[in-house]
Amino acid sequence: MQHNPFFDPAPRQHTDGLFAREEVYLANRNHGALLEMLRHEVTPAGLHYLLNHFDVPYVPDAEAWRLHVGGRVSTPLSLSLEDIRALPPKTLRVTLECAGSGRANIVPRWPSMPWLNTAVGTSEWTGTPLSNVIERAGLAADVVDVSFTGADRGFDKGHEHEYGRSLTPDVAMHNDVLLVYAMNGQPLLPQHGFPLRLIVPGWYGMASVKWLHRIEALTMPYDGYEQVQSYIYKTGAADRGVPVTQMRVKSLMVPPGVPDWFTGARLVEAGQVTVYGRAWSGNGAPITKVEFGIDGAWSNAELDPPAAKYAWRGWRFDWDASRGEHELACRATDDNGQTQPLTPAFDRGGFGNNAVHKVQVTVR
Amino acid sequence: MQHNPFFDPAPRQHTDGLFAREEVYLANRNHGALLEMLRHEVTPAGLHYLLNHFDVPYVPDAEAWRLHVGGRVSTPLSLSLEDIRALPPKTLRVTLECAGSGRANIVPRWPSMPWLNTAVGTSEWTGTPLSNVIERAGLAADVVDVSFTGADRGFDKGHEHEYGRSLTPDVAMHNDVLLVYAMNGQPLLPQHGFPLRLIVPGWYGMASVKWLHRIEALTMPYDGYEQVQSYIYKTGAADRGVPVTQMRVKSLMVPPGVPDWFTGARLVEAGQVTVYGRAWSGNGAPITKVEFGIDGAWSNAELDPPAAKYAWRGWRFDWDASRGEHELACRATDDNGQTQPLTPAFDRGGFGNNAVHKVQVTVR
Repeated sequence: MQHNPFFDPAPRQHTDGLFAREEVYLANRNHGALLEMLRHEVTPAGLHYLLNHFDVPYVPDAEAWRLHVGGRVSTPLSLSLEDIRALPPKTLRVTLECAGSGRANIVPRWPSMPWLNTAVGTSEWTGTPLSNVIERAGLAADVVDVSFTGADRGFDKGHEHEYGRSLTPDVAMHNDVLLVYAMNGQPLLPQHGFPLRLIVPGWYGMASVKWLHRIEALTMPYDGYEQVQSYIYKTGAADRGVPVTQMRVKSLMVPPGVPDWFTGARLVEAGQVTVYGRAWSGNGAPITKVEFGIDGAWSNAELDPPAAKYAWRGWRFDWDASRGEHELACRATDDNGQTQPLTPAFDRGGFGNNAVHKVQVTVR
Repeated sequence: MQHNPFFDPAPRQHTDGLFAREEVYLANRNHGALLEMLRHEVTPAGLHYLLNHFDVPYVPDAEAWRLHVGGRVSTPLSLSLEDIRALPPKTLRVTLECAGSGRANIVPRWPSMPWLNTAVGTSEWTGTPLSNVIERAGLAADVVDVSFTGADRGFDKGHEHEYGRSLTPDVAMHNDVLLVYAMNGQPLLPQHGFPLRLIVPGWYGMASVKWLHRIEALTMPYDGYEQVQSYIYKTGAADRGVPVTQMRVKSLMVPPGVPDWFTGARLVEAGQVTVYGRAWSGNGAPITKVEFGIDGAWSNAELDPPAAKYAWRGWRFDWDASRGEHELACRATDDNGQTQPLTPAFDRGGFGNNAVHKVQVTVR
């Protein structure tokens, strides 16, 4: 990991003010899912949230792509896509959320991708369990971390690196961690990791390395920038922090009515309105309850039948909308008893904001 | 067109300062094309720029969709998608740019979607010439405008409306104006107008109405909000203005090297670097020249073979990158002799910014 002090163009500090041009630059490149598209159980192509740290690699010839597996293994491998597609296939419907979703609602705010609350999506991911490849390579008994490196490269705070992350061997060998080459039955889109990526169900998206080209078995803890410096929960500067891993329980609603273009403020017609939404949690923990809040009073929403293990669960609430201003909200609970806070906890990097989704509406 | 003074939540004024939360909200919803994806002649699904004024309509049953054709016609029509797919098909490769692309680089800036410079994309659009439908309906001789209304509805500055636009009969009857149901050989994606949209080649994207459900032949000029109030070039508040129509000549480059995550600043290795890009113009005017600028000195770039009539044309430039800081730029000229200005002209709504694309790089 190389630190290049001459290439850290804009040192950052927390702010509670307006947004910098750099934040807007990131919001031009990355995009959320559009809340109204929560009506779709599987997010349509191009509407799955996108958070790419560096340029999307240009891969004109996927047949030349190789996945190298090395480090403390008995048999180093160099696998083509054909090799990987020949392994037993597996498809999982997985909800992924960006760890930074909701960052722009945390005060003070860390300047980075200024997500409001839409960095989430659900796809059918097809590939093969990573364990099939790792078993073929054969991990040594003293391996403590398995690292995953993508082909996307650049700088962050002067650190030059290819995007990389690691998993402990027990997580890496879990049968639902996939090496993925297809999304919703189509080849991966370039921006989602073509030709090969990792999918780590239940975890925030940073674990699901895109454009994966190198796996390495390590006998010392992995110290890549995105693992040990970037995705860490911290509340103070001196805080050693806690790594970001599984997604926290969360829910979102389709804002009812129609929007004002510039503000997104909602106008709703008085009367019966069905409000739709989805809820999810990490670690495959099922959603057991979603509450719908109207001006601070909570009622249970109706849950759709249980979804696939790692996918969000639909819900709906029939609201009798009366004229005036109202604050709507939704709050999910999973079967670990975890639920959502009413307001976001402060986090230095703006990670893990699972506060309830609130929508202000004007009913006429 | 209804003006609702109680629903204009945030009156706007020009600014040269930081960005408002509302601008960031719009940048969370809408997205550009990723400059590195200019390597692709046809923009991959999900990376075509997206500018939606209101919610994407939820259309669970496309077979129930009807296109109504009415007003001053001899035969009002109500057409299903099956009816439209039965008409002679036509596919065109078309580059579309948002009229507001580059808005965030105009000083002072109009608060709206804060596009830097990536609101452009190229797709293969398949449908049938609009003229096939209009001829079947039969325009009266005194028709002066044909209006197109989408199913997306909301407010802008207190004006409630479905998104709508119009074309004069001669433009509407042009054989390359299409009623489109497929994009890159796939059904339209919801966010790009599923199940039916207009494509008006050569024009900025605002003319290509999505979720099209009503066409009306008018004997008076169309006065819809998006036609007469929104997409108008104006330099002063009292200026009557000029409607935004055809795309202005423009070019963009793939920034060489690798980025800093937060700023997008580029670091390039010294030596031979091939810089790639694309150029386009409105009205099907072919691109005849692209110049590449290095610290203000211009040379001709190499043009790819001519592209399809309405599609961008590729270009490349072999640059011998020397250590230090450099400003790269590209400038296209079309066969009408139109070329790009070095700096953006002021426009009140932030439309039509076709200033040269400049990229600052550090070469090591």
